[in-house]
Amino acid sequence: CGVDTCFTNPGTSEMHFVAALDQVPGIRCVLALFEGVASGAADGYARMSERPAATLFHCGPGLGNALANLHNARRACVPLVNIVGDQAVRQRPLDPPLTADTEGFARPVSCWVKTCEDTAALGAEAALAVRAALTAPGGVATLILPADTSWNPGGVVAAPLPAPAHPPLDPHSLEQAAAMLRNGKRTLLLLAGRALLERGLRTAAGIAARTGAQIMAETFNTRMQRGQGRPTIPCVPYVVPTAVETLAAFEQIILVGAKDPVGFFAYPDQPGRVAPPAARIHILARPEHDPEAALAALAEDLGAQPQAGEKRETPPLPAKDAPFTPANIGQTLAALLPEGAIIVDESISSRDPLVKALAGAAPHDHLCMMGGAIGEGLPLATGAAVGAPGRKVYGLQADGSALYTVQALWTQAREKLDCVTLVLSNRKYAILQYELKKVGAKAGQTALDMLSLDRPDMDWIRLAEGFGVEAARTDNTARLADLLREAAKRPGPFLIELCL
Amino acid sequence: CGVDTCFTNPGTSEMHFVAALDQVPGIRCVLALFEGVASGAADGYARMSERPAATLFHCGPGLGNALANLHNARRACVPLVNIVGDQAVRQRPLDPPLTADTEGFARPVSCWVKTCEDTAALGAEAALAVRAALTAPGGVATLILPADTSWNPGGVVAAPLPAPAHPPLDPHSLEQAAAMLRNGKRTLLLLAGRALLERGLRTAAGIAARTGAQIMAETFNTRMQRGQGRPTIPCVPYVVPTAVETLAAFEQIILVGAKDPVGFFAYPDQPGRVAPPAARIHILARPEHDPEAALAALAEDLGAQPQAGEKRETPPLPAKDAPFTPANIGQTLAALLPEGAIIVDESISSRDPLVKALAGAAPHDHLCMMGGAIGEGLPLATGAAVGAPGRKVYGLQADGSALYTVQALWTQAREKLDCVTLVLSNRKYAILQYELKKVGAKAGQTALDMLSLDRPDMDWIRLAEGFGVEAARTDNTARLADLLREAAKRPGPFLIELCL
Repeated sequence: CGVDTCFTNPGTSEMHFVAALDQVPGIRCVLALFEGVASGAADGYARMSERPAATLFHCGPGLGNALANLHNARRACVPLVNIVGDQAVRQRPLDPPLTADTEGFARPVSCWVKTCEDTAALGAEAALAVRAALTAPGGVATLILPADTSWNPGGVVAAPLPAPAHPPLDPHSLEQAAAMLRNGKRTLLLLAGRALLERGLRTAAGIAARTGAQIMAETFNTRMQRGQGRPTIPCVPYVVPTAVETLAAFEQIILVGAKDPVGFFAYPDQPGRVAPPAARIHILARPEHDPEAALAALAEDLGAQPQAGEKRETPPLPAKDAPFTPANIGQTLAALLPEGAIIVDESISSRDPLVKALAGAAPHDHLCMMGGAIGEGLPLATGAAVGAPGRKVYGLQADGSALYTVQALWTQAREKLDCVTLVLSNRKYAILQYELKKVGAKAGQTALDMLSLDRPDMDWIRLAEGFGVEAARTDNTARLADLLREAAKRPGPFLIELCL
Repeated sequence: CGVDTCFTNPGTSEMHFVAALDQVPGIRCVLALFEGVASGAADGYARMSERPAATLFHCGPGLGNALANLHNARRACVPLVNIVGDQAVRQRPLDPPLTADTEGFARPVSCWVKTCEDTAALGAEAALAVRAALTAPGGVATLILPADTSWNPGGVVAAPLPAPAHPPLDPHSLEQAAAMLRNGKRTLLLLAGRALLERGLRTAAGIAARTGAQIMAETFNTRMQRGQGRPTIPCVPYVVPTAVETLAAFEQIILVGAKDPVGFFAYPDQPGRVAPPAARIHILARPEHDPEAALAALAEDLGAQPQAGEKRETPPLPAKDAPFTPANIGQTLAALLPEGAIIVDESISSRDPLVKALAGAAPHDHLCMMGGAIGEGLPLATGAAVGAPGRKVYGLQADGSALYTVQALWTQAREKLDCVTLVLSNRKYAILQYELKKVGAKAGQTALDMLSLDRPDMDWIRLAEGFGVEAARTDNTARLADLLREAAKRPGPFLIELCL
């Protein structure tokens, strides 16, 4: 069915599947030391290759370890096919220790779950799983494979099933959107999904130029094409009062694959929705529609031509003695970013100045962790590198988040992936120290200890080298430039600890 | 309700809970860099302290990261109370990115799940959660706490609820067991749970001496008291044909908290149950009964007196040039093990010779990972050290398994826990290479690559030091003895890589 890449951490019940990997030429199988690395990598792979990867996990608890990043993948709307080996059908009623409610583990993250107990049906079920994953907007399909289904005779390779087309756009909704863009009111086009690839951005920029509407992206995005020659659009701010203030100007919001914007969390005395209560919200395209087609149809109706971004020069390096701030780190990276780079953004509390600085860099893809479950950055970068060979991946990686799935570094080393990880090392859960204040909770020393990562400090060079990845450390802007130049030239993974 | 220890990896929705930690004197809160460390530590804590710890996790995906070790805790039948912060009740319908089916994540591992949406009811729900966790044989209770339930006014501290007593033993079942032990047939007493603490072992040994029955433990055990002065009993072998052969001698099996023994996995052409099909299986005590009381009642009926183990001297150190095998490693550890040590056993493929050698060591507790979800060893050791201060913890840790939750080393360093980790470093998933053969799958190079941990080799000294734990490496029996002597003297964590 076109799936040729498998991210895995297998166990006993998957041994026949593992052995079969050698029987199909061209299958690439990538080992992870922890399941959450494999699931996050499958997400990153799908974002860049636009095809589903398979994962291979061991029983309910193995799938359990993958769930946080499967949640992120679900929110990213990427296609992904989990194969979960499980107890043999005949062993299951005996309830050996590793028996668990595997379907129960799978359901909260999956658009499709099936336990296949019949070897003859297995091929067809696998084809259904791939089709389910590919059904717009893309989702996580989980095929559970008891060990005896694997080893029994009678398996049949099934024909691939075509992925269903996007549902058609509602012409009435399109007419309404066009009418709104002509009615003179202050209007926002809020984009998500594939609308943020270059073609969609250019179409949207043309509509904005033609109508005076503004365009904006959701706070976090699966894949946004940014940099020189591309329209730069702002994202809805993360901070609720700032988002409310930013959106207050709009009387109308047209959603193109995006959702009515809401706060990432609730806070006492702050609203849940961040758009003005009186603003008219109009859905042009739901996530399962084709947002590029929706924008194209709208542009045609309005007589708008696609527009490139304004011309920009590569920004200069900051002064050699510039302070080592996220803004200057971002500017340094922007100055040196190779064309076609992939930015994987789990920068959390350092995010805004980094994202801002990178708008002026060479053309690149920008990927965010989508479900709010921190610990996807390193796996996402790993999978993006597998899915887009020849392109350099730069991870903007908060230190606290990196530690959830730090084992990904080993997979980067084994697969010799071109991943440069920039660890933003502030030795604390800075975002939580911020959130603690925002929710109005008063903290003493015990509480503050739960939000700090010191005593002992992590040694990122030793951690990286322990997993086979070369590493360096700096707290100096000029030295960072040297390290980035070096990293751009060398193949394989490299990690730079940025001591903030 | 007597819960004074919390293992946590918190997020925004838990900030009020975190802040409250400073308002209750005597609460110990232990930070983990990854949720699976916290859940495995709560398991280890409960095994040694015989009290539940709380965990604190962030939304469905944070709980997701904890699930594999919660599965292990469920199989260990320990009391454990999860507190899972979640989206505010009013925010939930808006479906922000981190919203998930938190109850769905919790159910497969929990004996009790409740989302509390009413601040006034929260105290009473917490008391119910603790009671559910403490209800025999012990289980995982999950209380989900939306952020606004935390910050709304009106909370009331509730009175603790007494844990329900064990259900009474069935006198008829007791009579039958006694009759079986008198009928002259070849009989096995199969023990689990608290029957494996010193008192139960002595009672069972007395019954065996009186009746000619044999005693045995399940393959893996939550906590077994072993070493000098204690009856040494064998475990049901892990390998199915060996288990079948071992049990073939018995015409009757009396279960004391144990289950009818089954293979850990199914294999083609091997049975699921490993007891002789014709053997009579009799349940004296289910897991929820009191196995110590059941053994005592049985002993009284039979007129059996408790028996200590046979007297044994501490084994000598192996010869200085003895080969560096698991057997000699085990003998070295046995010779030097301090009295009252805690062995945490995730030794997987090196297990049998290590366990055998330790039978002659000073009295100690032996804890196994119970649910088959590898990656609990380091967290379990961490929690056992918190739950039994003043006792030295030795982790027998397979390298592949250690890598799932290697972040536990940092918590050991931060809390200055007396944990000595012996990494059995064979640089492969040796158990899977073995299982691959057993299931009859034929592997090529791609498959074998998925079962090996080389290219690159992990550097365990760098990994440990990266997390703030001092470490050493050896492939020499005499040097291991030196390192163990040194480790026994120094406080805080230490890691020794054993290059096999």
